[in-house]
Amino acid sequence: MKIGIVGGTGDIGEGIAMRLSPNHDVVIGSREEDKAESSCNACIGVMSGLGIRCRLSGHSNQEAIDRSDIVILAIPFRHLAPTMSSLSGFEGKIVVSPINPMEKKEFFIYTPPAEGSAALLVKKMLPEGTRVCSAFNTVAANKWKAFSEALDLAVPVCGDDATAKSAVMQLVGSIPGVKPYDAGPLAVSSMVECLTPLMLNIARYNKMKDVGIQFR
Amino acid sequence: MKIGIVGGTGDIGEGIAMRLSPNHDVVIGSREEDKAESSCNACIGVMSGLGIRCRLSGHSNQEAIDRSDIVILAIPFRHLAPTMSSLSGFEGKIVVSPINPMEKKEFFIYTPPAEGSAALLVKKMLPEGTRVCSAFNTVAANKWKAFSEALDLAVPVCGDDATAKSAVMQLVGSIPGVKPYDAGPLAVSSMVECLTPLMLNIARYNKMKDVGIQFR
Repeated sequence: MKIGIVGGTGDIGEGIAMRLSPNHDVVIGSREEDKAESSCNACIGVMSGLGIRCRLSGHSNQEAIDRSDIVILAIPFRHLAPTMSSLSGFEGKIVVSPINPMEKKEFFIYTPPAEGSAALLVKKMLPEGTRVCSAFNTVAANKWKAFSEALDLAVPVCGDDATAKSAVMQLVGSIPGVKPYDAGPLAVSSMVECLTPLMLNIARYNKMKDVGIQFR
Repeated sequence: MKIGIVGGTGDIGEGIAMRLSPNHDVVIGSREEDKAESSCNACIGVMSGLGIRCRLSGHSNQEAIDRSDIVILAIPFRHLAPTMSSLSGFEGKIVVSPINPMEKKEFFIYTPPAEGSAALLVKKMLPEGTRVCSAFNTVAANKWKAFSEALDLAVPVCGDDATAKSAVMQLVGSIPGVKPYDAGPLAVSSMVECLTPLMLNIARYNKMKDVGIQFR
């Protein structure tokens, strides 16, 4: 599977790119191609320093879409509408939303759009029939990037198309120590997206770092 | 601490009562005092069969409130309004909501009331100044009742009053294998209540049983 990461130069994007790159062709996308290339080189530097072979390249966000089968939207919720309006070519792709709409007041609180969740909004923005899943929502950027630490984390995956969901779960499961769980249709993706503000509050109020989740 | 469990004869109520009873005076409450007494005797039977000493009694829901410092509302969401309208004497107590409003369609979905969460609705129903926490939301009845299995579960606790929250966290933490986490104010209790429909979906779609949650 070829994986394109829109907004791949952010912390979450780079983290996911590095974790996937030993087993998949991964395109780090950015609004600025230069930035994608230097992010890509930085990731390759980290990986080869650890003796891990990887398959990474850096391109524009549009090329990240065009060159891939699965597109991961690693962008903050506030950038979703402007980013999506500048991009095209999603037809036939599987689009993955790891986006968690939230606000930080004294605490973090989930602030879904009128559609019910970021993933449902993404689906609405795309051509009819584009297969959308939510996944990768629950992992902190620092955990993705901490290669020295073994992961032991759950990633719930939502989606309405069984084949697409199965492909995304396989992608998630290709990362050592990360276990994908089928969390149901996109209609319940809000219950996954709100895990992140919950975990940020748990981290804050219990003096923990980079809290992840496990089901047992 | 004396603990009263309104609706204590249900599966969740009995499970919580048994887990708390070795270390606390626990009153199992019911609309029908007879039912509370037989539930209490059944619990005592189970516990003494396991060689565990416990402090349990069975009374009316109203007496469960009157005799206790912390009142746990172990009732389904649909019974909340009628039950609360028939009870009084909550002043000065700590009231704990383990209630998760949800619907079962093809899947489980969180259906909070207009107030934002069951816990926020409970607060609105009580005399001003009554201290409300949400807790015990995330543990399946079967896990509470399976004494032969060691627990290893997280219980997030929300609340606005620091002293009350600390007392409830201590109560939660008095159950071996259950770890309380401060999940923030009552304003974010919806993010905890929706964990249960999420976990029920995870159980269903991944062929698991009595799914619990852990933070790490």
